[in-house]
Amino acid sequence: MTAYFPGSAGNVLTEFDLPRDARIDAVIARTAFERPTLVLDTALVAENYRALSDGLGHAVIHYAVKANPAPEIISTLVREGSGFDAASRAEIELCLSQGARPDRISFGNTIKRAADIAFAHGVGIDLFAADAEEELEKIAQHAPGARVYIRVISEPNGADWPLTRKFGCASDRVIPLLNHAAALGLDPVGLSFHVGSQTRRAAQWAGTLDQVAGLWHAARAEGFALSLLNIGGGFPAFYGDEIDAPTEYAAQVMALVTERFGHVPHVMAEPGRGMVADAGKIAAEVLLVSRKSETDLHRWVYLDIGKFSGLAETTDEAIRYQFETARDGDDTGTCILAGPSCDSVDVLYEKRPVQLPLTLRAGDRIVIANCGAYTSTYASVGFNGFPPLDLMVI
Amino acid sequence: MTAYFPGSAGNVLTEFDLPRDARIDAVIARTAFERPTLVLDTALVAENYRALSDGLGHAVIHYAVKANPAPEIISTLVREGSGFDAASRAEIELCLSQGARPDRISFGNTIKRAADIAFAHGVGIDLFAADAEEELEKIAQHAPGARVYIRVISEPNGADWPLTRKFGCASDRVIPLLNHAAALGLDPVGLSFHVGSQTRRAAQWAGTLDQVAGLWHAARAEGFALSLLNIGGGFPAFYGDEIDAPTEYAAQVMALVTERFGHVPHVMAEPGRGMVADAGKIAAEVLLVSRKSETDLHRWVYLDIGKFSGLAETTDEAIRYQFETARDGDDTGTCILAGPSCDSVDVLYEKRPVQLPLTLRAGDRIVIANCGAYTSTYASVGFNGFPPLDLMVI
Repeated sequence: MTAYFPGSAGNVLTEFDLPRDARIDAVIARTAFERPTLVLDTALVAENYRALSDGLGHAVIHYAVKANPAPEIISTLVREGSGFDAASRAEIELCLSQGARPDRISFGNTIKRAADIAFAHGVGIDLFAADAEEELEKIAQHAPGARVYIRVISEPNGADWPLTRKFGCASDRVIPLLNHAAALGLDPVGLSFHVGSQTRRAAQWAGTLDQVAGLWHAARAEGFALSLLNIGGGFPAFYGDEIDAPTEYAAQVMALVTERFGHVPHVMAEPGRGMVADAGKIAAEVLLVSRKSETDLHRWVYLDIGKFSGLAETTDEAIRYQFETARDGDDTGTCILAGPSCDSVDVLYEKRPVQLPLTLRAGDRIVIANCGAYTSTYASVGFNGFPPLDLMVI
Repeated sequence: MTAYFPGSAGNVLTEFDLPRDARIDAVIARTAFERPTLVLDTALVAENYRALSDGLGHAVIHYAVKANPAPEIISTLVREGSGFDAASRAEIELCLSQGARPDRISFGNTIKRAADIAFAHGVGIDLFAADAEEELEKIAQHAPGARVYIRVISEPNGADWPLTRKFGCASDRVIPLLNHAAALGLDPVGLSFHVGSQTRRAAQWAGTLDQVAGLWHAARAEGFALSLLNIGGGFPAFYGDEIDAPTEYAAQVMALVTERFGHVPHVMAEPGRGMVADAGKIAAEVLLVSRKSETDLHRWVYLDIGKFSGLAETTDEAIRYQFETARDGDDTGTCILAGPSCDSVDVLYEKRPVQLPLTLRAGDRIVIANCGAYTSTYASVGFNGFPPLDLMVI
């Protein structure tokens, strides 16, 4: 990768001289944006794919398209050799349009519209997730003979964002569902689970893997020739708290898997956040800085982007983004950060305020780091008349 | 209004024979929807406008466009004589495109982009909200001489959804801001506040009105010739808990205002939810019914619409929608209700499960009542590849 350093008047530097996001910073520095814009560098997506692949060994990546469905990301990953985890018909169509082969696409949503199953089957997709009888029946009817994996509920493990029980079945349902699948003429090939979004340390996978391995071996003892283990996502991104580096993280997860499962012929991993979060930054603007009363300790800082235009993951202050301004280095003070809409819910950080320069004022640019995942598509179509997050791919 | 009853083979019945939403029900009954669709009856919006106007007396309505910016709603309200409260340039453009006069549009967002203030001023809008020095300075620069009202923070009063401190200034800032506005050459005409969304009983306004009246009289004693009181929104919709009827509610609020403020020449009210919520129903579909374990007490029911495609107001289970199915009358059981996305946050009601027919199954239609407000524009552009909420106006 060759990159230009901002302000370096075009001198070519090598990647070793530069921070990874130098290309993004350069584009943001020289561009006047009309509205909040996610600037995305697909070269970083390719780097992340390789880093994760290196650690995952024989496990294959099915990129979780929902994390960021930008066509340029999909085509980059097709070139890198990635598979894809699709949540809907529209995501399947997107992957196919960017050159993905149907046998590299899995339909991983456990809640599928019957017509979408039929569509997927029609275009040649043969691998489906399920966690309930009725879902298996829909698959058997609309994709007869398809391979299915059963998603199991995993127990809490300390992920930053543990999943609820929305997806997966309890342990006592696994054998009945495998039996039901076989009885319906489907091919029950394996199990899947999810450790929880943003699991920052590989070691945190151990408990969940213990649990699923118990179910795996029990199913094999019952005579099911399971051959596919889908380890899902959970691969972390940097949001201020330390994380394991991607290659080491993936290798350690696979070592934990092999310890418990032995050699599994087909292992799938579904990174989303871990693949694209650090490949994008949002260029935004300060709209207002104010104090509510004469005695207020905190300033309120209002941005032109908020919960309804890209930063939905600030709900409950779960994901803590990092901010950069041209005034970094000036003295800082605590701020409550809020979005531009006339909605009182549209406050980003209040319980744990952020530190920003005291000199910050309306009209200043503010750059939000590591925003490549779960931003652009979370944006509303136009709440309060504000447009969705714009996207610039470099 | 003349309406046709579903299945009545075209016999004309009068409005007194029919529920208000019979026209919507008839359209839903005879339509096959490809995706979740909000069916909206503008005749009900006009009825609501008249009911609220009747109660509000000399107060004028500025419809809160953000509640539902469907052009057909705006044009209906233009015909009825309504004013408009706009949150952004796009909402202003929308109102103008539907025939609203600029002197009937207020720019009520306290967090405005400087360029949008200039745009509003350029098209003839002369009334702006502010709650901070920097905002007044932006208005003075880009809309010199404009009328401004100062928004004050109101204290909690028992609204179903109290607003945070995001909007408004504390009491000790009111006089300084009025002075600042005057010093900048603006015309500080009044005050505004918001009692909190979904304030179900008019009597709940009393405490907030006491507080604001104190500030109003103090400002007049200081020599400010205040002439405009903007009482904001808070007008409720029916979501299962009893509310006061609109005309009586509005009349009682105005009686409380007059008791405390005397005769105010210009009173503005900004109903949003109360104007449009009961004018729309969403036609949706059940995608899956399941139990997670052999011993589960609740079923899980998954719909083709969720938090990211229109039902954002189910966050924290704040707004509790009412559901109708063709199997109503069958025995019911408790359900956890969830949306279709691969996102564990996309659960609608879990802490307080809902009662639905035990016979419910995948493919069944489910109709969600009183969805005219804060649904269509909250929908994401396409999270998980699911399209935004569709809209059909009748």
